[in-house]
Amino acid sequence: MNGKEVSGVVVRRLPRYYRYLDELLNKNITRISSKELSKKMGVTASQIRQDLNCFGGFGQQGYGYNVEILHEEIGNILGLNNGYKMIIIGAGHLGHAMANHKNPQKRGFKLVGIYDVNKSVIGEEIAGLKVEDFADIEKSVEEKKPDIAILSVPKGSVVEVAQKLVDCGIKSILNFTYAELDLPSDVVVENVHISDSLMTLAYELNQNNKK
Amino acid sequence: MNGKEVSGVVVRRLPRYYRYLDELLNKNITRISSKELSKKMGVTASQIRQDLNCFGGFGQQGYGYNVEILHEEIGNILGLNNGYKMIIIGAGHLGHAMANHKNPQKRGFKLVGIYDVNKSVIGEEIAGLKVEDFADIEKSVEEKKPDIAILSVPKGSVVEVAQKLVDCGIKSILNFTYAELDLPSDVVVENVHISDSLMTLAYELNQNNKK
Repeated sequence: MNGKEVSGVVVRRLPRYYRYLDELLNKNITRISSKELSKKMGVTASQIRQDLNCFGGFGQQGYGYNVEILHEEIGNILGLNNGYKMIIIGAGHLGHAMANHKNPQKRGFKLVGIYDVNKSVIGEEIAGLKVEDFADIEKSVEEKKPDIAILSVPKGSVVEVAQKLVDCGIKSILNFTYAELDLPSDVVVENVHISDSLMTLAYELNQNNKK
Repeated sequence: MNGKEVSGVVVRRLPRYYRYLDELLNKNITRISSKELSKKMGVTASQIRQDLNCFGGFGQQGYGYNVEILHEEIGNILGLNNGYKMIIIGAGHLGHAMANHKNPQKRGFKLVGIYDVNKSVIGEEIAGLKVEDFADIEKSVEEKKPDIAILSVPKGSVVEVAQKLVDCGIKSILNFTYAELDLPSDVVVENVHISDSLMTLAYELNQNNKK
């Protein structure tokens, strides 16, 4: 099942499924119907059945889904059990917030390094790690072998920083800067758009205001 | 067209459409085919046609979409032209990062206040605003009439803080804390899940590693 290619649209829904199943497990709920999942997630029940069929389909007519198995399987597909190691580039406010963020750790990601170019923050301790000089990134990546780099640098420096990371062998980047990165095709980039949530909220507020 | 109810799934795609159309406008691109939009957004062309038909459909066979009109119309539907006013509760690292974030302003949101309970940050200037004492929130909300509250407070205090805001008349909340909020049904809450992007990235990395 794991080897099967899953469409981009389904992939974008997987973290939400995973998160919701995680909540259910925390509440000791062991099974759930596609109807209930549907209600919670704002996706039609038939869409959910279709999505989860991509992974072999864990549903049983009249029984629903086995929460634990589905949670584990989606976790496997997402690669959460690989113990991916992260580094953060940019120890500003966002870098700090990400370093202290508990959820990535809960999802199996391990923070192994924080870097900055600013001499005044190099050496400072954040989340149990000393901020390192970005000038030493090459050697550091060689030692620590991180899988993912989180970019929370100023927009103006992101292209240069990203290129340097790729030169060091980094193959995946979480980009908070909104700058478009033109990188080799074997490097995966995920752009984080916090203002999307703000726009969705504005939509809902707008709808309510019309009532 | 604006009065029409749009499904939750389509609504979640609107900010992405808006963002992409915004990029096109910045590049002086005035029209786009559903095929091109499809490629960029990872949604099928027929899905895009279906989505945009919810708003009256701005496409013309063999011509594509008029970027400017579509951008404006989606902006209207999202309520981005209402000049919504935001406040930030919690002037920690995440609160700082959000206050200095340029995109919400570009999308028409206006930051009018930042609050904290910590005496050591009250009075500090962030993004041109003095951090105010959360103890004075009621009076401040009455004066400034904000539409949206952004919660970047510790998870342990979020329930109390959210309740206080609702008591003050706040009707929409952007919640960074992951805590589940049980609020009246006329209050809209949007939870921001940064680790979803990290999970999507892990998926892609996992797929590439298998190649």
